[in-house]
Amino acid sequence: MSDLDLLKRLEQATEGTFWHFLGCRLIGWDSSRTVVNLRVERRHLNHLGVLHGGVQAALLDSAMGLACGKSRPDEPIVTTNMSLHFVSPMTDGDLIVEARLIHETRTIMTAESRLYASDGKLVSMATGSYRIARHLPEPPSLRSSGGERKNGSGGAKP
Amino acid sequence: MSDLDLLKRLEQATEGTFWHFLGCRLIGWDSSRTVVNLRVERRHLNHLGVLHGGVQAALLDSAMGLACGKSRPDEPIVTTNMSLHFVSPMTDGDLIVEARLIHETRTIMTAESRLYASDGKLVSMATGSYRIARHLPEPPSLRSSGGERKNGSGGAKP
Amino acid sequence: MSDLDLLKRLEQATEGTFWHFLGCRLIGWDSSRTVVNLRVERRHLNHLGVLHGGVQAALLDSAMGLACGKSRPDEPIVTTNMSLHFVSPMTDGDLIVEARLIHETRTIMTAESRLYASDGKLVSMATGSYRIARHLPEPPSLRSSGGERKNGSGGAKP
Amino acid sequence: MSDLDLLKRLEQATEGTFWHFLGCRLIGWDSSRTVVNLRVERRHLNHLGVLHGGVQAALLDSAMGLACGKSRPDEPIVTTNMSLHFVSPMTDGDLIVEARLIHETRTIMTAESRLYASDGKLVSMATGSYRIARHLPEPPSLRSSGGERKNGSGGAKP
Repeated sequence: MSDLDLLKRLEQATEGTFWHFLGCRLIGWDSSRTVVNLRVERRHLNHLGVLHGGVQAALLDSAMGLACGKSRPDEPIVTTNMSLHFVSPMTDGDLIVEARLIHETRTIMTAESRLYASDGKLVSMATGSYRIARHLPEPPSLRSSGGERKNGSGGAKP
Repeated sequence: MSDLDLLKRLEQATEGTFWHFLGCRLIGWDSSRTVVNLRVERRHLNHLGVLHGGVQAALLDSAMGLACGKSRPDEPIVTTNMSLHFVSPMTDGDLIVEARLIHETRTIMTAESRLYASDGKLVSMATGSYRIARHLPEPPSLRSSGGERKNGSGGAKP
Repeated sequence: MSDLDLLKRLEQATEGTFWHFLGCRLIGWDSSRTVVNLRVERRHLNHLGVLHGGVQAALLDSAMGLACGKSRPDEPIVTTNMSLHFVSPMTDGDLIVEARLIHETRTIMTAESRLYASDGKLVSMATGSYRIARHLPEPPSLRSSGGERKNGSGGAKP
Repeated sequence: MSDLDLLKRLEQATEGTFWHFLGCRLIGWDSSRTVVNLRVERRHLNHLGVLHGGVQAALLDSAMGLACGKSRPDEPIVTTNMSLHFVSPMTDGDLIVEARLIHETRTIMTAESRLYASDGKLVSMATGSYRIARHLPEPPSLRSSGGERKNGSGGAKP
């Protein structure tokens, strides 16, 4: 499958999901590096006016999941665990997340990811473990209007 | 300050923030336990139809930040690091997050948190370190329409 | 198998291993809680005179591995990941580590553990993921003098 | 201070400590990279015959502590938290750990580290946060025979 096909499939697959709700954009996706962008808005901040740790976690996780999915495009991948270090608060501008797959076995993938402010300053970093999910729960009715999901046809995890 | 005052202040402080954007509700907040609720909707899911790890991270982080803030109501608190284990995928219903402050020194607090599905099943768990942030970056113009922020008057970190 | 049998098997299995080298002792091991003890000596300290983080990690990891092994006595279990928070330095005396299995699926177990000084003060805490290791590398010659290892007959992971 | 002076000071400072007890050797230490070596022996293994997670944690932690100490040679540094991923079991041979300082503020340093087998295969990786410890507990009597410790003259954290 070509990269364009993968990107189209990603766009369709993420319609209405948290990825879309946050406002993420995939701007680079090859075997060595996955790059995700977000324009920080007020709704991404916490009450202190700094980028919420949860937004950072969502982006770092999504980018690592995509890096893993690049290597296993036809398998549903879920996060097993993730560790984050927040090193510098960010308040506005565009952020860039870069993720790389570091190691993979038949069932477990390990990735790392970094989130940078638009001036290139490191904001946070993460490592995570991902696994091929052979058995996922049935989609509930609330998603019936949002299209179908087929196990095994997920690919990336944005 | 009474609990009611703290809750009012929280509501005001989170207007327009990520906490509000996600749809979180604080439903219990005393010195031993912080409880947060979210009704899972399609926008909280990933493309596989399961609750996004980033939503879970946001809730676990917010609940731990609130647990820390309960102990230091007049100090701005930021997350230093966080580790998450995702043990069981969740697809819909109401979720409950419980957080507890485990240890604190003058500058660093350590907390733990668990996220449960409405049937009581454990979905994910986290631990995190939080610190008193003496110096935060200035709020940018994008937040000028959204109200003021005063360093040192934050308290909780939702 | 009785608890006594398990303890005997543990003693034999750990002869000459890192567990034995460190000086660990298993002092409680039932389905709800695993308790490990170590008398802190100079060789466990770092150059600042405080208990080395690696000793703490070894004990927290071993106790969690044992907690997992209690539930799967006939399976070889390995650590997949571990996260630690060091909250208070310890310099001498007896330490106690308590571990509990929090969640398990067919292949992955999640545990937590805490390390206390003899006065009951929390020193560090950890969470970890453990998996059943179907395929382990062949034991090298250096272990040939130390007895045999049979995959699948390991049980605990001290 | 020259590198040779630092190495000498390290050797003296680690005499009788856990670093020495494990058998670690510092084989490279400049501002961009810290490299530590260990020859794996039976006492470093667990009962399954694979390198104990605690040995790996000790090495990864020590190497990261040294990477931080390189930047702050006259400050006592302690580990605040550490996260580890174990990706491939190792059974014998020489191992190499490489650590790098990723980010530092006035009080907190963030580092990463990787542990490789002698054939270059990745065995485990870690990230950690380290802080300047202004107040450490007094050294107990058990160390009185092993030399003096002076707060603030520690430097590295092996």
